[in-house]
Order: sequence, then C-alpha cells, then structure tokens
Amino acid sequence: MKAVIRREKRLVCDEIAELQPGEGQVLVKTLACGICGSDLHALHHMEHMIDLSRRAGAADNGFDPAADTVFGHEFCAEILDHGPGSPKTLKAGARVVSMPVTMHNGAMEALGFSNRLPGGFAERMLLTEAMVLEVPNGLSTDHAALTEPFAVGAHAVAKARMEPRSVALVVGCGPVGLAVVGALKAQGHGPVIAADFSPRRRAAAERLGADIVIDPAVENPHDRWEALGVPKSRAAQGMMAMMGNPVARPVVFECVGSPGVLQSLIEAAPAGAQIVVAGVCMETDRIEPSIAITKEIELTFVFGYTPEEFALTLRQLSEGIIDVSHLVTGKVGLEGVAGAFTALGDPEAHVKILVQPGL
Amino acid sequence: MKAVIRREKRLVCDEIAELQPGEGQVLVKTLACGICGSDLHALHHMEHMIDLSRRAGAADNGFDPAADTVFGHEFCAEILDHGPGSPKTLKAGARVVSMPVTMHNGAMEALGFSNRLPGGFAERMLLTEAMVLEVPNGLSTDHAALTEPFAVGAHAVAKARMEPRSVALVVGCGPVGLAVVGALKAQGHGPVIAADFSPRRRAAAERLGADIVIDPAVENPHDRWEALGVPKSRAAQGMMAMMGNPVARPVVFECVGSPGVLQSLIEAAPAGAQIVVAGVCMETDRIEPSIAITKEIELTFVFGYTPEEFALTLRQLSEGIIDVSHLVTGKVGLEGVAGAFTALGDPEAHVKILVQPGL
Repeated sequence: MKAVIRREKRLVCDEIAELQPGEGQVLVKTLACGICGSDLHALHHMEHMIDLSRRAGAADNGFDPAADTVFGHEFCAEILDHGPGSPKTLKAGARVVSMPVTMHNGAMEALGFSNRLPGGFAERMLLTEAMVLEVPNGLSTDHAALTEPFAVGAHAVAKARMEPRSVALVVGCGPVGLAVVGALKAQGHGPVIAADFSPRRRAAAERLGADIVIDPAVENPHDRWEALGVPKSRAAQGMMAMMGNPVARPVVFECVGSPGVLQSLIEAAPAGAQIVVAGVCMETDRIEPSIAITKEIELTFVFGYTPEEFALTLRQLSEGIIDVSHLVTGKVGLEGVAGAFTALGDPEAHVKILVQPGL
Repeated sequence: MKAVIRREKRLVCDEIAELQPGEGQVLVKTLACGICGSDLHALHHMEHMIDLSRRAGAADNGFDPAADTVFGHEFCAEILDHGPGSPKTLKAGARVVSMPVTMHNGAMEALGFSNRLPGGFAERMLLTEAMVLEVPNGLSTDHAALTEPFAVGAHAVAKARMEPRSVALVVGCGPVGLAVVGALKAQGHGPVIAADFSPRRRAAAERLGADIVIDPAVENPHDRWEALGVPKSRAAQGMMAMMGNPVARPVVFECVGSPGVLQSLIEAAPAGAQIVVAGVCMETDRIEPSIAITKEIELTFVFGYTPEEFALTLRQLSEGIIDVSHLVTGKVGLEGVAGAFTALGDPEAHVKILVQPGL
C-alpha cells in the first residue's frame, strides 16, 4: 500500500508492506489525518526528540529515528477487517477514531512515531479494537479527525484547576491554543482572552468563542487583567481579599512553545497565576526563579490526554459544543504531504491541513 | 541605641536614632533575632535583589540599597512601650513575636529590609501592635525566634497539596529544608525523605522527624521512590492505577536555591511530581521544558506565609509538636554579627545563629 515515509529527514511517497490485523486489532482505511506541529518538528529533529524523551524516563522501545517512520496521529478511519477472535462490536464500514496507540506483538506502539506500524499518512493502519470509538451523531470525517488535537485542549483545561470566576489568557492560537480555547468555552469558563500575532489564528479563536481576542503587536494582553477583576500585584490582591472579594486564580495557557515565552509570562502574569505549559518547547529555556517565587507562580506542564478526555472531546465535537467547522483549511493526498509541511510554516496560510490518502 | 548596620556592603556596629512608637505601634526590646540566608545574600547583592523584586511587580517603596539598612526579620522581643491610644492588650514586659512588617507613616515597612525602620539586629524595634502575638506556654525566647523561619515551612507544605499516601522528598536541609521537614511531620505526613551533603544538617533533619535521611554523595535519594510505592515512569504508574492502586502525588521540596537544581529534579523526580520551589535561586536558571512536559511536572514557586500559618507555627513550637531544641547552634551580640555571617558560610559549622543585642 502507499504511504508517506520519513526517510533521511525527508518525506517520500513509497510502497510499504500490507498489514494483517492480529488478535485484538482492526485493520482500518485512513479517511483523514491531520498534520501536527510535532510532525513538522520531528521531520528534522527526531533524534533530539528521542534524546529528550529518554531523559524524561520513557522506556527504550527500540524506536530508531534513522529507520523509516510513517507519521500521522490525528486520524479518522473506516474499519475494513477484524483480527482473529474479534467480538466485531463495530462492523466493517464503521467510521472510527482512536487514541494513536496500538498494542502490537505485546508492546504499545505510538502510531505516527513507530518503525513497526504506520501512522495515518498511509492508506491503512492497525488499531487496537478495544480503543476505537465510533464517530457519533453524523459528525463529518474531517471534524472527527480533530478529536485528537482537541483532546489536548481538554486535558490542559482539566489540569488548570479553574475556579468559577477565573480569567483565562491563552497565549498562542495555533492548534494547541485553539484546542484550549475550545475546551474552556465548552466547559463554560470565561472570560477567555486569546492572543496571537496572526489575524487568521485570531479569527479562528474568535469563532471558537474567545471573549477577547488580542494582537500582541498592538496591545499587551496582560493590560486586560485589571479591568477583568484580577489585580496584578499581590498587595492589590490582598486588599481585595480583605474587602471580602478574593481574586479567583488567574490562569495563563502557554501554547507557543518557544524559548523565552515562559519567562515573559512569569514576569507579565498576575501574582499567583497558574501557567499551564501546553506549548512544547524543545530547546533549553531560561527562567528567573526568584521572580516566580516572589509572585508565587505555578508552572503546570501538561502532556497528552486521558481516554476519558479523548471520548469527551469526540462527544463535544459531535454535538457542536465545540464548533470546528472553520478549522480545516486545506486537504492533500499522500503526494501533497511534503508540500503541506512547507505550507504550514506560515501561520497565515493555514490552521489545519488534513491528509486524505484516498485523494 | 546600638545596631548592626549594612553600610557600603559591610556590617558595622554603630549608634542609630532612638524610636518613638506612633499610633498603632509598640516599641519593643529585641531579645533574639536569627540570621537568615537572605541576609547573607542581601549583604552583597541587595541591588540585584531589588531589581528582581521590581521585575516581580513589587511597588517601589523608595527603598535605597545604598542607604543604611538594619537587617533582622526572625525575632522574639519584649514590649517596652505603646503608641498613643493603644488598647494595651499586651502589657509592657510581654514577650512577643510578629511577622516582620510594620505600618509606619501610612506605608508597610519590611523589617530587616527598610531604610526607615530597623530590623532585629538593633536593640529596639517598632512593631504593629495588632500583629504581635504573645509567646505562649513558656516557650523559650530562642525557640520563639524560630517562628518566622518555620512559618516558611508551613506555607510550603500548605501549597504542596499533599495526599494521604504522598511521599515527600526534601532536597537541602538548611533552615528552609528543616522548616519543611518540621511542618510535614507536624501535619502527620510521611514518609519524608530528607537529603543533604552535610552530616550536621542531616542530623538536624532526623531530629525533626525525617523518616529517611540521605547523603546524596553516597546514595541518589531518587532511588528510594520505587520502594516507597511510587514508580518513576508514567507507564508503571498507569499500570498500578489499572490495578486499582493509583499513585499518590509525589512531592519534592526544592530547598537549595542554586542554579541547576531545578532541572536535575525535573529529570530525576517521578512522572507527575509536584516540585515545590522554596529555595530562593537569585540567578538565571535553565530548564528543559520538553522533559517537564513529557513527565507532567508541576513547579509550585512559594514565598512567605500567611498570618494564619505564622500563628499556627508559633503554636506548634510552643506545644513541642515541632521540636527545635537542637537548632540554635550559636549566639552572638551585635559586635559578633559580622563574624557570624562569615561562619554561616560553612554548612557544617552552624544551623541557626541568634543575635542577642543584649549579649
């Protein structure tokens, strides 16, 4: 079958071996698969990612960054066939999504970052039957493929310990920031301030329900805290509390992932702020601990999502609670993936590009 | 009256002006005042501390690091006289402690870091009458003077969101780490692992109730997590949770405050750990955000204490719940303060030196 393969830090279209579903697996046809920022990074920096992942304590699963890899972990697919002994709860033809991990030969393979199984930039994949969720409620294939990136937002918000009167600032409105905005509004939080230099991304944040959308080139988003009832200094917060009106926790979502952003937020956020770090900065970063201490900042680093958050997100998309109708800005077949990676370097050009192996 | 003055980055004994208690103030005689690590740092680096404090959003209160300052914010004192209109709830002769802030001419002065009022390295001070707490239960003056540094531990533990089965690792057993050990055990938490290179400090941690005391030169304290029921990897933690035995939050208290310690803890701590940053690192520090993200580390920067935590600590000291009988390792008069600052540079020489202006 055809797939887009990462080979020597380039993307090439080539044939790979056909797949046979084993016990507990289903063979699926990839209908649509989003391109993620981590794919863009991994194309050139996989070795560094693996090194950081090992330093983070990940078990060595034998993944070889020099060997062929088929990316793609944000997919919607159609069941083609079942492995031996399957209960066949979902029949062939059912449209499904799944967290991108497959039990294979006794090990968990991370789809999209595996040498042994292809991810969604291939015509077919093997999924774990017990983990697939049927796409409900007539949700379109394109939108179902956004379940995975939006689950990242649900998880970040779950870790944020929002309080009823909390004000949230989302810094960076790429796919991660947009997922956070969607999850915040789906859960009834607000006011939500969203900041991004890109007009296209700001418009997307607004469509997802951000209450205040700011271009940081024009206005410092941190100038808004006071007017929303969150004094920035500890002294002023203490004064409010003394008057019987304690300040709800201010929450900042860091969704940029570039060096320097964290320290800029430590300095600019209100005292007592929780900074949920969802943007993945792959470089060494510098902070001033004494400033974070004086302000009693909390840095909550978040990653991935739980099965419950993944399922919740699918339901919210299918019920229109999170409206993602405007986010897919491009579609390519397998031959177009390399070009799409280049196009995604420009934040104005696209929000999300889907790969449709059948296109 | 006599005081030890920071003048041109040196400590000199000199006469300063007598004090008159204003409305709402009491004049007190300093009985004992501890030397804090922040005093040692401020002697040489006050300008940098002020700069960081301003970047942290502190209001400019006109403090001039080039002008005379009398340090000392960990004190026990005796009431000598009351300001006009005082209710005199506590009479002259009462022994008291207080958070080191005094309302003076309509502004809050931080005792020990003020050009306008002296801290505890002076024969007398002005305190805010409404804030003084009488030393209860026959608690000795020496031990009452430890209320302030131990309140720092109470606050760090309050911010730690400990769970019933949480394992705590205290890294660094200087005064901050010892206060954390004391607060953890006073609140019934455990097991508490305490790590420090200094035998003297390890012995002090043991006396305060640390369950496991480790010399990092001999053993990596992080090797203990597994045996205490906290697997370090997310995969192993997930396996435990699947078997109905979810892992309680592992909590690390960073009480060293040197560059590099934070990143070493991010790498060595179990996945999901909360790192409570109580050690004040005044230099720029480097971290690897992607490792913190993969492990879902939480960095909780903490500072100071609340009035309630201060009062709780005084009660715990007075009831022997926290046994500080072994911590005062030296006493000096005002003439001996400069020498004591030097002696405190060696972690083996002392735990806490008290200044007794009457000595």
